[in-house]
Amino acid sequence: MHTDAPVTLAILALHELSIFQSTAADAQFAPSMRDTIELSRIGGYALNNFETLVARIEQRGGDVVTLLEQFAQSFHAFNQRTQPTDWHESLMKSYVHDGLVRDYVHALEPEFDPQTHDVITAVLDDTRRETVLRERLGGLVAADDTLGWRLALWGRKLVVETAARLAELRQLTRGEHATQLDATAWQAALLGHSRRMSAIGLVA
Amino acid sequence: MHTDAPVTLAILALHELSIFQSTAADAQFAPSMRDTIELSRIGGYALNNFETLVARIEQRGGDVVTLLEQFAQSFHAFNQRTQPTDWHESLMKSYVHDGLVRDYVHALEPEFDPQTHDVITAVLDDTRRETVLRERLGGLVAADDTLGWRLALWGRKLVVETAARLAELRQLTRGEHATQLDATAWQAALLGHSRRMSAIGLVA
Repeated sequence: MHTDAPVTLAILALHELSIFQSTAADAQFAPSMRDTIELSRIGGYALNNFETLVARIEQRGGDVVTLLEQFAQSFHAFNQRTQPTDWHESLMKSYVHDGLVRDYVHALEPEFDPQTHDVITAVLDDTRRETVLRERLGGLVAADDTLGWRLALWGRKLVVETAARLAELRQLTRGEHATQLDATAWQAALLGHSRRMSAIGLVA
Repeated sequence: MHTDAPVTLAILALHELSIFQSTAADAQFAPSMRDTIELSRIGGYALNNFETLVARIEQRGGDVVTLLEQFAQSFHAFNQRTQPTDWHESLMKSYVHDGLVRDYVHALEPEFDPQTHDVITAVLDDTRRETVLRERLGGLVAADDTLGWRLALWGRKLVVETAARLAELRQLTRGEHATQLDATAWQAALLGHSRRMSAIGLVA
């Protein structure tokens, strides 16, 4: 996955674009105006992150559309396999999948030129949506045991599907010999996931 | 509709928030990566407009959530009555409804304090999404007669439903005596609509 800078920038850009779209969709179905506004703003942060990554790709002379298209099919397939059935599952999907992807990319610690490194670090260090989702999901789980149990199961499915997707990305970017996840980076992501589940009152 | 500044600011803010959500949803189902990115950016512009309006409401001491909640039900009902059945209808909905609402509010020429006036004018003068939608829809209609015919019919339904919604807003904001549209402002909106339909090769 860390073969070269444009690839990592493109994968993250597509990730942020997808978060933008899913949180905006969630905003539409939010139970209150306050949630609608909050989720819309999270979508806006993701779009800003996307633009920062795109600007860096273009500075390096990469073609954004072509780079993103490479990974669109794998992303689309992942989304097909993990369609939330309601608003709670949709929030949980953002929380779990996003956390794993960010921890994984962080742990790979790719060696890029300083400017690319700074752009990627700034995007990965943006915890605004994690904070909002943690508070919202924590409140929902605390108020409803049955929902908590359902979201815990859903979270486990999301972990499995995220692992499959990251392995697929690795294969796409590094060729046929790398169909596995980077074990160390995935371990770090799972540790982060455990911590995130605890933070909302669930066991990973 | 122009009873006071916070109300107009709130109606426009909710409108921009809704455009943000619908274009982000459209972006998800766009047929190409280029469309996905373009529609996402349009969503971003709408969110920025929303924030500009919200900032002005707050400067004036208004409570954003309460103000927006007043109009949420009417908006939701309109969206229920005008659910697009596909991507093309969804683009057309943004194009037609958005154009009418903006022309209508523009034509009311409410007398506000200069700062509010500037904020509202800046939002209404932002034609970036109209430009993108016009080019995209124009291309689609030129390439497919059957689609053009279907979108023309759909456009007429959207005009009727937008009129109903604006009348409802007027009633909500001005009380029981005002169940009608402002005739002059609506006439101006219809003129704009005619021009927008011609621009994409359709008759209003």
